[in-house]
Amino acid sequence: MTLAQPLAVTMGDACGIGPEIIAMAFARGELAHSVVVGDVAVMARALRLCRLPLTVASLRSAEEASAAAPGVLPVLQVGGIAGGLADLPLGQVDARAGAAAARCIEQAVDLVRRGEAGAIVTAPIHKEALAAAGIAYPGHTEMLQALARPGAAPPAVRMMLANEELRTVLVTIHLSLRRAIDAVTFDAVLDTLRIAHRAAAAWGQPRPRIGVAGLNPHAGEGGLFGDEELRIIAPAIAAARAEGIDARGPFAPDTVFMRARNTVQHPGEFDLVVAMTHDHGLIPVKYLGVEQGVNVTLGLPFVRTSPDHGTAFDIAGTGRADPSSLIAAARMARRLTGS
Amino acid sequence: MTLAQPLAVTMGDACGIGPEIIAMAFARGELAHSVVVGDVAVMARALRLCRLPLTVASLRSAEEASAAAPGVLPVLQVGGIAGGLADLPLGQVDARAGAAAARCIEQAVDLVRRGEAGAIVTAPIHKEALAAAGIAYPGHTEMLQALARPGAAPPAVRMMLANEELRTVLVTIHLSLRRAIDAVTFDAVLDTLRIAHRAAAAWGQPRPRIGVAGLNPHAGEGGLFGDEELRIIAPAIAAARAEGIDARGPFAPDTVFMRARNTVQHPGEFDLVVAMTHDHGLIPVKYLGVEQGVNVTLGLPFVRTSPDHGTAFDIAGTGRADPSSLIAAARMARRLTGS
Repeated sequence: MTLAQPLAVTMGDACGIGPEIIAMAFARGELAHSVVVGDVAVMARALRLCRLPLTVASLRSAEEASAAAPGVLPVLQVGGIAGGLADLPLGQVDARAGAAAARCIEQAVDLVRRGEAGAIVTAPIHKEALAAAGIAYPGHTEMLQALARPGAAPPAVRMMLANEELRTVLVTIHLSLRRAIDAVTFDAVLDTLRIAHRAAAAWGQPRPRIGVAGLNPHAGEGGLFGDEELRIIAPAIAAARAEGIDARGPFAPDTVFMRARNTVQHPGEFDLVVAMTHDHGLIPVKYLGVEQGVNVTLGLPFVRTSPDHGTAFDIAGTGRADPSSLIAAARMARRLTGS
Repeated sequence: MTLAQPLAVTMGDACGIGPEIIAMAFARGELAHSVVVGDVAVMARALRLCRLPLTVASLRSAEEASAAAPGVLPVLQVGGIAGGLADLPLGQVDARAGAAAARCIEQAVDLVRRGEAGAIVTAPIHKEALAAAGIAYPGHTEMLQALARPGAAPPAVRMMLANEELRTVLVTIHLSLRRAIDAVTFDAVLDTLRIAHRAAAAWGQPRPRIGVAGLNPHAGEGGLFGDEELRIIAPAIAAARAEGIDARGPFAPDTVFMRARNTVQHPGEFDLVVAMTHDHGLIPVKYLGVEQGVNVTLGLPFVRTSPDHGTAFDIAGTGRADPSSLIAAARMARRLTGS
């Protein structure tokens, strides 16, 4: 029997809660057969901060993760990280932490592209730290997209946020709302529908029922409150349907998520909802609690999941962060890779 | 003992579910001591459509509602309504229904201004029908605002959506998202905070904890994704705080509603949330089901509530509409007027 490849878990921003939630998840046995792609000293500090009786093991290769002894936190030291990262004050934006977080992501992509890791689970980064470090990408997703196929055109990707009862896929993400409206184009909506459709097939839903949220209040109310539904979204849905994609809408944003909510008492009308803006899609997924929300990047040539919360600088270093969403992300990554 | 004044319940769009849900609510005894402000023939048709054994009584004044016998649906016939309204096809936009709906609202405001009704509960209207009739207002709220104090400046009002666990107050409502962004001004945000603060005092919360949602993803992430938080929202919050209003934020839109959610297991951090856009505020209130969601107009010189759903043309005439939200709206109106 061959073991599946380990999960590559990136450390995230060293000044945030990433190292702590990773340490806690390991201590709970929830990250077996995983390797932390990060900095040995930072992870050792996280263990101390959380008063966990584990010891850090510095691996020479991801492969060694399978042989990690109980009580050991296996870390693959990433090169090119500034020294003294573990001495940075917690809970503050620091360019060095931003640069290191980016290096960890690059290293994890290398591992998964070389077949040494099976999927990537990313701990939170801080976008201001990333920007302070001069990183050209506003967030994880854009960076992974650029790194996925060096030399080739970057794959079109979309962010999905999922919990047990709702899955939303976003047409736009890390843009001001004003720029997000400009980014809602026919191609952007159609590509989102295609990516969501293909991704769902990979999870065993070959013809997912996709509900499409409008952009404007009441989905524009027939053009009275904005015409993006008439000019852009409805034509993109029609084009998707012509390709055999079961997309419907555009529906009023304020009720389509409720309609898709899937519980025992309330079977959802849709398998996933495509939302035009970051917050239209994320507000309902997070409303019942962020603990079980998982961020999945659709369209990459590998599986990548992450918790759906941020670096939580306000509680970084206190050992009080909740690793539930990271654990849910790791479980989702295993499910999507069949490992 | 003097009876409180009756509730004035406007009929809404004659081609939508309004007349039916009113009929059902009366049949369930949930609209005792209320009067329908509408059209006798339309309400008689609604009783037939719902197979309800009530009969319509045409009142001469709202006052007579208190004497309405059981089994009677008391209607105050509104003048100036086109004949044949009850023969219009259900589930379709019709200018005549739009014009009649507007007349009912005008009549209800007259009643409450003359002290003949205690509060207004409005059944759904269809905005396209209103526009087709040449009505200058995009929705109920704007119309009530204009009618509230003829001859004087219209009062600043805001829409609140409330259910048992969440109350959101909206800075902008029936505008395209693009125009809504332009309408998020210092004055608009500060006025919203003042209106929400004053309204909560009237319900017995003299210093409500108000959480303010940002406009952009991650509330702008320090200016990276839009600067409205820095330029507009934060200064408005500071100005409100200087007036003694307990406003906090701006917070990331995708988590502030979750933080405000108030349940036995999860006490809310805020008593209400101010949202910049219609859908940021309404998505979370509706997510758990529209049945209990109530729309309250804050800032008017009288109490006005309404269900938080629309005309539901797709099921109009079937008798299958759910009167729960209308019933919740009537209960809320009685609570806010102490009747």
